[in-house]
Amino acid sequence: MPERHPQPVERLVQAFRRLPGIGEKTATRLAYFLLAAPEPVSTELGDALLRLRKEVVLCAECFNLTAESPCPVCRDPERSSEQLCVVEEPADLASIETAGVFRGRYHVLGGALAPLDGVGPEGLRIKPLIERVRGGGVSEVILATNPNPEGEATALLLAEQLEPFGIPVTRIGYGMPIGGDLEYTDSVTLRKSLENRRQFGG
Amino acid sequence: MPERHPQPVERLVQAFRRLPGIGEKTATRLAYFLLAAPEPVSTELGDALLRLRKEVVLCAECFNLTAESPCPVCRDPERSSEQLCVVEEPADLASIETAGVFRGRYHVLGGALAPLDGVGPEGLRIKPLIERVRGGGVSEVILATNPNPEGEATALLLAEQLEPFGIPVTRIGYGMPIGGDLEYTDSVTLRKSLENRRQFGG
Repeated sequence: MPERHPQPVERLVQAFRRLPGIGEKTATRLAYFLLAAPEPVSTELGDALLRLRKEVVLCAECFNLTAESPCPVCRDPERSSEQLCVVEEPADLASIETAGVFRGRYHVLGGALAPLDGVGPEGLRIKPLIERVRGGGVSEVILATNPNPEGEATALLLAEQLEPFGIPVTRIGYGMPIGGDLEYTDSVTLRKSLENRRQFGG
Repeated sequence: MPERHPQPVERLVQAFRRLPGIGEKTATRLAYFLLAAPEPVSTELGDALLRLRKEVVLCAECFNLTAESPCPVCRDPERSSEQLCVVEEPADLASIETAGVFRGRYHVLGGALAPLDGVGPEGLRIKPLIERVRGGGVSEVILATNPNPEGEATALLLAEQLEPFGIPVTRIGYGMPIGGDLEYTDSVTLRKSLENRRQFGG
């Protein structure tokens, strides 16, 4: 049987299929779209992909993804260092920034506790968080981990570990649907959940 | 306001957004997925994209997309040259090949008549089709343009132009839903529509 697609097209289809939510049909449609589209549509995407991992680093302060460390949020002199918002992933930080409702700084944990997947406390950036709080100047830690079992467990652990510092540790809450995902939450809900944060254990 | 994503991520999001069916949210999700995934997932996709347009050419016989001209279908000595299946696009040819129900050769028109978009007969590869039929050895032309107004108008025009050669000109028909698109049709429907083709104007 002759090949179904020319080999360069087949290779592209298989590469697209590794992305979430893209199956055989969508991958094929994208490949033929790119063959018919102006050449920059494919080359600029290809170029962006090849440069992505080379040019993105972790911010040494907050562990956000950035082209240059420290990241723009940590560099911004107009943002308050007093409020520290703890999120699981850089995508969560990006979501809150898009909502434009928080003017403090962040700390990206790099995930949430997931014992079944082998992610324990040592797999998260908890120690650097404690060090930042110990360093002083933080008057509130907002725990913005996801409102699912893993995120709640992580928030509980962080609240315990931050208790000795005697500063308010709050949890975003009101407005987030249970089982939801911070990354895909709309701006209004994110604003509500930041405005209506409550003291942890309070 | 600081940038929402690091610049290399933003560039990737914008490049993804130019693909059909991919909006801001999906593009962002794909970008952050690629940042977290093993590096080859992004570099192999990037590589495939950059090589795509360099390595794919048109078959000099049938105008199919191929890594090497003539294409595997035209090179295959086991396929019959007597049946010529005329399709609009290479993706349509790929769909029929996937169904595995046709063992003749193809002719890719490069589109369908679309006067409103400025595509007239001279914008399609009709002349090379006539030349192939004039060259002899073709005992049937199957018109497999899409079952929509543009595809029907194109089939009608081709049937007229092929009439002088006195060979059967058939139209795929039964099984294709009106307004449908050949590229996305399942194999069973494609098989039906090839089996139940009827003589044009008959």
